[in-house]
Amino acid sequence: MNIEQPPVNRERIIPTGERRGLILVHTGNGKGKSTAAFGLALRAHGRGKAVRIYQFMKVPSARFGEHRVFETLGIPIEGLGDGFSWKSKDLEHSAQLARDGWERARATIEAGEHFLVVLDEIMYPLRYGWLPLEPVLETLRQRPPHVHVVLTGRNAPQELIDLADTVTEMGQVKHHFTAGVPAQRGIED
Amino acid sequence: MNIEQPPVNRERIIPTGERRGLILVHTGNGKGKSTAAFGLALRAHGRGKAVRIYQFMKVPSARFGEHRVFETLGIPIEGLGDGFSWKSKDLEHSAQLARDGWERARATIEAGEHFLVVLDEIMYPLRYGWLPLEPVLETLRQRPPHVHVVLTGRNAPQELIDLADTVTEMGQVKHHFTAGVPAQRGIED
Repeated sequence: MNIEQPPVNRERIIPTGERRGLILVHTGNGKGKSTAAFGLALRAHGRGKAVRIYQFMKVPSARFGEHRVFETLGIPIEGLGDGFSWKSKDLEHSAQLARDGWERARATIEAGEHFLVVLDEIMYPLRYGWLPLEPVLETLRQRPPHVHVVLTGRNAPQELIDLADTVTEMGQVKHHFTAGVPAQRGIED
Repeated sequence: MNIEQPPVNRERIIPTGERRGLILVHTGNGKGKSTAAFGLALRAHGRGKAVRIYQFMKVPSARFGEHRVFETLGIPIEGLGDGFSWKSKDLEHSAQLARDGWERARATIEAGEHFLVVLDEIMYPLRYGWLPLEPVLETLRQRPPHVHVVLTGRNAPQELIDLADTVTEMGQVKHHFTAGVPAQRGIED
């Protein structure tokens, strides 16, 4: 895309009324960042659009409820991580997986064959420094203009918020975990 | 359920570690309230759970992306409204539809045959006074304890927030509409 950069805060010129791919960010400490991305994937699939989901913090073998349904529907959903936890000893391995995963996601975005690409929990590897931010921003800026990309996770970098078309902050008003109610299968996973 | 009421702000006593149905509220002015509810429905369905969705502000004939997929999956999704808009002349008709719709949703919740019941955009009829709040709260309090209920829409009443287990406020940080980018089929509907 050869598009001039405006002086303030918007990285692309947006003609009024344009139909084109969007950059959507779901961030904040509350619930619903990933599930809303899954809902968008569902909606786009229902419109006959090609969708692909990459999950930066899930293992490839993850079989949560959403994986089972997406498999049924034929929506590719791919875990790129190694089940990283705060007690992980081999963070360099986690970092390498994130970089390898990003290369796959980047190739999908650039190929332009998908209407919607979900980068679920990409904020983690960005925040940990496993993925440098600038190449991710550059891929988003230079992507085929019809491709929508949804990026989820807490603490979205300001540069990504500046670039995005739509940013939603999912704020936690209250959460059942803090009342001693554990994760509920079918709701949390 | 014969459960005592604690003195402050919680309408039920919650033993630590309990597995039971939750009241989840998605509110706020941002995107993702309904799509996150759809994502939860998808996840629960993927776990083999019975799910049912009622949409208070959609017409029964709505055929957005999500309706098409839910139909494929065999998840009932039912529009209860009449395509109400700010220019509607017959608000009493809209109000009556909301009350009729609520009776159907209430019966489903009380029957206890569903793991998850979604009451999408129920905040509108509550806010407009079409549905009185107290009977809705009472149904939620008295429901079979395994039933999860998700309620969506802006401006959730405080009494509902007090009753809920988990409340997420979807806040709008930025939105492509305000930049002149129109609704995108497959993303917005």
